[in-house]
Amino acid sequence: MIKEGERAILIDERGRKYLVKAERRQLHTDFGVLDLAELIGAEPGARIRSHVGREFVVLSPRVVDYLQKMRRMPQIMLPKDAAQIVAYTGVGPGDSVVDAGAGSGALAIFLGNLVRPNGRVVSYEVREDFAKVAEENIALAGLSDVVKVKRKDIYEGIDERDVDLVTLDLPQPERALAYVDGALKPGGHLAVFSPCIEHIQRLYVELQKYRFTNHRTIECLVREFEVKPGATRPSTRMIAHTGYLTFVRKI
Amino acid sequence: MIKEGERAILIDERGRKYLVKAERRQLHTDFGVLDLAELIGAEPGARIRSHVGREFVVLSPRVVDYLQKMRRMPQIMLPKDAAQIVAYTGVGPGDSVVDAGAGSGALAIFLGNLVRPNGRVVSYEVREDFAKVAEENIALAGLSDVVKVKRKDIYEGIDERDVDLVTLDLPQPERALAYVDGALKPGGHLAVFSPCIEHIQRLYVELQKYRFTNHRTIECLVREFEVKPGATRPSTRMIAHTGYLTFVRKI
Amino acid sequence: MIKEGERAILIDERGRKYLVKAERRQLHTDFGVLDLAELIGAEPGARIRSHVGREFVVLSPRVVDYLQKMRRMPQIMLPKDAAQIVAYTGVGPGDSVVDAGAGSGALAIFLGNLVRPNGRVVSYEVREDFAKVAEENIALAGLSDVVKVKRKDIYEGIDERDVDLVTLDLPQPERALAYVDGALKPGGHLAVFSPCIEHIQRLYVELQKYRFTNHRTIECLVREFEVKPGATRPSTRMIAHTGYLTFVRKI
Amino acid sequence: MIKEGERAILIDERGRKYLVKAERRQLHTDFGVLDLAELIGAEPGARIRSHVGREFVVLSPRVVDYLQKMRRMPQIMLPKDAAQIVAYTGVGPGDSVVDAGAGSGALAIFLGNLVRPNGRVVSYEVREDFAKVAEENIALAGLSDVVKVKRKDIYEGIDERDVDLVTLDLPQPERALAYVDGALKPGGHLAVFSPCIEHIQRLYVELQKYRFTNHRTIECLVREFEVKPGATRPSTRMIAHTGYLTFVRKI
Repeated sequence: MIKEGERAILIDERGRKYLVKAERRQLHTDFGVLDLAELIGAEPGARIRSHVGREFVVLSPRVVDYLQKMRRMPQIMLPKDAAQIVAYTGVGPGDSVVDAGAGSGALAIFLGNLVRPNGRVVSYEVREDFAKVAEENIALAGLSDVVKVKRKDIYEGIDERDVDLVTLDLPQPERALAYVDGALKPGGHLAVFSPCIEHIQRLYVELQKYRFTNHRTIECLVREFEVKPGATRPSTRMIAHTGYLTFVRKI
Repeated sequence: MIKEGERAILIDERGRKYLVKAERRQLHTDFGVLDLAELIGAEPGARIRSHVGREFVVLSPRVVDYLQKMRRMPQIMLPKDAAQIVAYTGVGPGDSVVDAGAGSGALAIFLGNLVRPNGRVVSYEVREDFAKVAEENIALAGLSDVVKVKRKDIYEGIDERDVDLVTLDLPQPERALAYVDGALKPGGHLAVFSPCIEHIQRLYVELQKYRFTNHRTIECLVREFEVKPGATRPSTRMIAHTGYLTFVRKI
Repeated sequence: MIKEGERAILIDERGRKYLVKAERRQLHTDFGVLDLAELIGAEPGARIRSHVGREFVVLSPRVVDYLQKMRRMPQIMLPKDAAQIVAYTGVGPGDSVVDAGAGSGALAIFLGNLVRPNGRVVSYEVREDFAKVAEENIALAGLSDVVKVKRKDIYEGIDERDVDLVTLDLPQPERALAYVDGALKPGGHLAVFSPCIEHIQRLYVELQKYRFTNHRTIECLVREFEVKPGATRPSTRMIAHTGYLTFVRKI
Repeated sequence: MIKEGERAILIDERGRKYLVKAERRQLHTDFGVLDLAELIGAEPGARIRSHVGREFVVLSPRVVDYLQKMRRMPQIMLPKDAAQIVAYTGVGPGDSVVDAGAGSGALAIFLGNLVRPNGRVVSYEVREDFAKVAEENIALAGLSDVVKVKRKDIYEGIDERDVDLVTLDLPQPERALAYVDGALKPGGHLAVFSPCIEHIQRLYVELQKYRFTNHRTIECLVREFEVKPGATRPSTRMIAHTGYLTFVRKI
């Protein structure tokens, strides 16, 4: 049951999604006006109607809904990429994670959702404007107890120890390597996201100085398909590149 | 600290990985003989030596280690694909999951690691030989409390209710749709893995009969790179196809 | 030396390309006004200037210039795909080709350029508006002696015999198979372009009735790269799908 | 009609291909012994039988047959890549081409087949063993009048002038750029094949010194499909990388 002040998802007849709060307020849509107070006490799966009679399905938000609807900063790592961090490092409940930079907090939220309730994500960010947006997004996703934004330059040090996973989405990841080495527990993983090949070339030079193992650099491509009777085909256009992901493991 | 009878990972000087038990037994490798009793009481990051003096690093296993080292049945879904289920459905701690068929249990273990300790995965399997292997692998991964193998044909019904996620890796996923619809909670997701396009074509015909939303069919491709000074390039060969993933959400 | 009435390519300082005729006429561009009469008698590589002094390089057009600048009809086969026909069939000077449908003539021109001067391309087209545009484009590319548009439905028959290559870009290629079989010489190739997988599924059923060999279905993907100092990466977006190409050879 | 001493293609009942000479000799296959003298005077499409009665279809070879059956040196450029040179440069009958290094001659033969009979391909090669194999392959393909192997280091100069296309498949293409600039006619194209990204990074630095336009770097991926009733899917494995192709045009 959705309580007053809680978030809810509304899905209209076209499949369009709205992230709203159950409160005494109206929502204006091109399918008519909704009274959001009707959400208070509603069960997921309930249907409410706009003043013109169009139906909206009520759902409880999941992390994918928050990630789609939150305010984005100019970052390009997508869920398809974040998901590969799960595939290669096995990050899960209880893990301790250090992330930098926070940006809009998307990766920190994605990881925070996986390590909760006992794990922790500390996300380093030097820009105050990014840090604020990240904190708002983390609060929106209900993860403020799990994910913390730290206003600190990760090039100047990592305070955390015995960390299971460090994720870096930075222009010069090689500058943080010594601190990553100190922060990770044995067997812990580092995941680096790099849009350009030069980042990786510099990173590998620096990686030779540390005892990491299992160096893997990958690129994850996701193609979407249009499946229609008699006309099934890949979509004409796709996101062809967000970035490369490099994984190493501390030994 | 690793206790007697617990699992440990050993990594030799080439980066080769061994999944072993801390017990009073010898392990023969091409880098010499190891006394596994030395693991009892060792801390992750410790080093032990073979009788010829080669060094092995001791680590605690993570789920990726179990998935790599467990006994596999002829299945083709890879971690890259399982990870996209996280990206598209946000599966995480506390979720209730139904999976079919279990096969070697790889996907059930991957998901069990993410929903623990309070979530549950029930994995349907009709073949007794597969069910046994899956149960052994689940036990090896330490997830017997979270992941259960159910010896039942999912084409004949799903017993669970209020489920967050159903995953199907079956020849005829369309035959399970009515039961999936009954098992999922509103807002819950279905993820279907299909090696061949005909499975998807049949599935979409059947999907029209149910109130699902957000139909997405994707293919996830992962390219590996060789990063060497002066010679950086994608690997010559790659796994070009495992299967298509179709996602829908119940409303 | 470019003669009066011949086509020329102009390239401005940004690399933008213009396909023009050497004639007593002005060309207005956002880099100023050009007197196209200056092209008469010019050598490729010459430079002419607009009235505001901006420089344009004069070149003789190649087939790639005509293909880029000609009037396009709604077709989606791209040069990357046409090129695979060369890779798989070895089409070259002297070959006899049948093509359907002509569309804007792009593929017919691409092939005509390869089989000239002694080869022939006959391109079937039932729509008069398409046939006219195709003929204009063929004339523009200077290939009217090599490439002919035939106003006939290829589903009703192919008149040519001893053909080296048939190319089909049609909704129902399987309906032309019997005629293709009659038209091809032994060892000749058929290339079919199909945007949707259902076309291919139907085609393969029908192909079983004929003595073709070497069935191959492929998809050609071309990724572009941005190469800049310190920032080399694949382009963010790409054309992910135009169509599938199926090749068989008559025996 | 095939004459004595000419090449022919035989295709057995499985689709396997043999490149043979019409001569008074026996060919031993696992489908029995064939008398190749039967080929003399045969028409393409004729059938001959082995001593155990298995049927072989007789065809005239096309360039794709020679390329598949010739002796290969360790080179990795594939027809899919060579074909993109056609797509981007429009190379065709009558063109003058300079190529380096020859390797086994595969690219030179591919291009020679397209520019014949009036065009020319000069292929530079410093290694005598490669040059000999290339010449044998060129002779096999019947292109000795069109394609010449030049035993010269292209890093030391290009003798040809007014060239339409230069193709470089060399470790240090940037060292040949000044000579390429001198050899190309205005509007002519350079195509460079590079397995590693570092080659391209160095090439672009050097390209800034010349007046080339239309810089494009691409990667061509070809996926094969298995099309079977009820089981249509991309092949499990593919060649994921041969090399990058860079195109520029002289102005």
